[in-house]
Amino acid sequence: MKSKLYTPGPTKVPGAVLGAVGQQVLHHRSPEFSEKIRHVQDELGRLLETHNDTLIFTCSGTGMMEAAVANLLSRGDKAICLNNGKFGQRWVDICKVYGVDVVDHAVDWGVSIEPAALADLAAKHPDAKAVFVVHSETSTGALHDIEAMSKLLKGHNAVLVVDATSSVGVHEIRMDEWGIDVVVAGTQKALMTPPGLSFVSLNGRAWALVSSSDLPKYYFDFTMTWKRLQKKGQTPFTTAVSLVYGLDVALEMMDTEGWENVYARHARMGAAVRAAVEALGFRVLPAKPVNGLTVALCPPGVDGNQVVRVLDDEFGVRIAGGQDQLSGKAIRIGHMGGIRERDLPTVIGGLERALARIGHKVEPGAGLAALQRVLVGR
Amino acid sequence: MKSKLYTPGPTKVPGAVLGAVGQQVLHHRSPEFSEKIRHVQDELGRLLETHNDTLIFTCSGTGMMEAAVANLLSRGDKAICLNNGKFGQRWVDICKVYGVDVVDHAVDWGVSIEPAALADLAAKHPDAKAVFVVHSETSTGALHDIEAMSKLLKGHNAVLVVDATSSVGVHEIRMDEWGIDVVVAGTQKALMTPPGLSFVSLNGRAWALVSSSDLPKYYFDFTMTWKRLQKKGQTPFTTAVSLVYGLDVALEMMDTEGWENVYARHARMGAAVRAAVEALGFRVLPAKPVNGLTVALCPPGVDGNQVVRVLDDEFGVRIAGGQDQLSGKAIRIGHMGGIRERDLPTVIGGLERALARIGHKVEPGAGLAALQRVLVGR
Repeated sequence: MKSKLYTPGPTKVPGAVLGAVGQQVLHHRSPEFSEKIRHVQDELGRLLETHNDTLIFTCSGTGMMEAAVANLLSRGDKAICLNNGKFGQRWVDICKVYGVDVVDHAVDWGVSIEPAALADLAAKHPDAKAVFVVHSETSTGALHDIEAMSKLLKGHNAVLVVDATSSVGVHEIRMDEWGIDVVVAGTQKALMTPPGLSFVSLNGRAWALVSSSDLPKYYFDFTMTWKRLQKKGQTPFTTAVSLVYGLDVALEMMDTEGWENVYARHARMGAAVRAAVEALGFRVLPAKPVNGLTVALCPPGVDGNQVVRVLDDEFGVRIAGGQDQLSGKAIRIGHMGGIRERDLPTVIGGLERALARIGHKVEPGAGLAALQRVLVGR
Repeated sequence: MKSKLYTPGPTKVPGAVLGAVGQQVLHHRSPEFSEKIRHVQDELGRLLETHNDTLIFTCSGTGMMEAAVANLLSRGDKAICLNNGKFGQRWVDICKVYGVDVVDHAVDWGVSIEPAALADLAAKHPDAKAVFVVHSETSTGALHDIEAMSKLLKGHNAVLVVDATSSVGVHEIRMDEWGIDVVVAGTQKALMTPPGLSFVSLNGRAWALVSSSDLPKYYFDFTMTWKRLQKKGQTPFTTAVSLVYGLDVALEMMDTEGWENVYARHARMGAAVRAAVEALGFRVLPAKPVNGLTVALCPPGVDGNQVVRVLDDEFGVRIAGGQDQLSGKAIRIGHMGGIRERDLPTVIGGLERALARIGHKVEPGAGLAALQRVLVGR
């Protein structure tokens, strides 16, 4: 039995998307493909509510994070990293690799950094060229208030660079209205596409930084990529054409559902799963949780990695364990993209059975009842 | 009508591979996927006839070329680039971006650089850390004698780094026996997989260079990738899992056909297509042609880009035009991977009709007859 996927990315991919991905490949230099990738890039711009161009790359979200650093900054530039988990730490690590002078604002995992703290940092470091932040921290489930952060940076020298890999398609992002300078994201989470594609969108302020950057880049060169797109509707290097066709179908599905409805669905799913796991004795880690995944600390005596393994092996449901310092201590359940409300009883039902199997006492149905109370709205 | 693909990559993908690519995604941290990617990496090692580990990355071949430069070299290191076409030039461009001191041995497009010339270069630059070369130059169809180059570099300081993107699976590569230090390649050409995956294999000499390299890299970090593979059978970042499943099926198909047979098939196809286009008034550009694609200069008065367009639009066959300095002057026909002998009359037949349509006189069937003479072995 192939396990059902409730991981926080890659996520379950709808059949229609898989159908597009499994079609015979087109040549990446054909007019048909140019038209397709231009259309998909436009749709990604609509999703981010921006008039900026978006650029698609064949890589994971991490590749796109590195690309942002390498394209925006120069050797010795100062950057503020808001570090509240594994992916916040990744911004720090990438910046250090490139010789960036990092202000590492590290807080405990699970904490959402307050916009006021960013205001202090920005005031203290007026020479910072960029602020790197993760919108939805996939390691902890903590949400950052990007709107407030972006607005308070107005007038500041630094551009705001947001990793939206597990938030795009889950939480609304109004890039232009909020004044976000750069968004990077992968498409294998709420955007329901098999992994392998990422994208970036930059505003004029960010492009100005790009034009003076001296860090090395070639495959991830934003300027070369943008020029080729403008001139020929092509990517400079061979794109994962199959995945672009899949992403096109996925975006169309979400567009048909209506983006407002997509965001509302994720809000309901997030609330329901949080209620369910708390009813089973877990504690949701972040005070300000995201809606695309739930990160919950295990009840005393329960090994999170064992829960993941038993749930996968015996009950055909695949969730994820805690990462790094949370390994064994937490579980992570993805409920975004192709996951619908109707799919939630499967993962909570499985979780109850897995807990029982490893000898942890739970009232059968307690998690499901809590789930249902949220879903029926009582 | 969707055009049949005879481009030099991506190439036509067999149905069984597409079927694997279109399956529901697995989690990249699951034991099943670890087993799969380890197996595929082992198979790639068998293909390269090496005991070295191979590492898979989600990117195009260009990403892997950049990765080789960034992982092997340090700022200011000297490198020799054998530059006989667009992809040879790419080695030069990437090296320059990273501040490498480039010895750019540029020759006319279509020329295969003689091993003796490399011997001279190596003697003249004993301080060079690496030699970068393209095995099968996709822009010109010229083949390099990697065996001879590799053997003559024995005892030299520099490692030999081979871009095998359009040669792997077409021309045999005996990495260990010939002593090649590094091979990089994409899997979207003769390896019959939709674009998006690339791989690298390094020997001990190359790993020693990696350990002292100071150029920045993160997404493409070979050491981090190798460690994670050894420890957990995982990639550090989310891989294009769907494409890995496709590659697995493609490699199995070629393994079943038998690698010797695969190489012999490409040799026959190369000879047949070259004979066919010459019979139609084209001139095969390189004196030492590769077997996976044919690059041929157009007869006087024929615009190669028009041939490509008419063949695509009116006859449902997609080949490629000349690149950069060959734009309009040449055509490029891919005949590798999923293309079989039986598929060749389609592209040559289409080419004859396209030539007739644009007003270029050819004897109907002349190309096909030449093709058949090679295929029937007379």
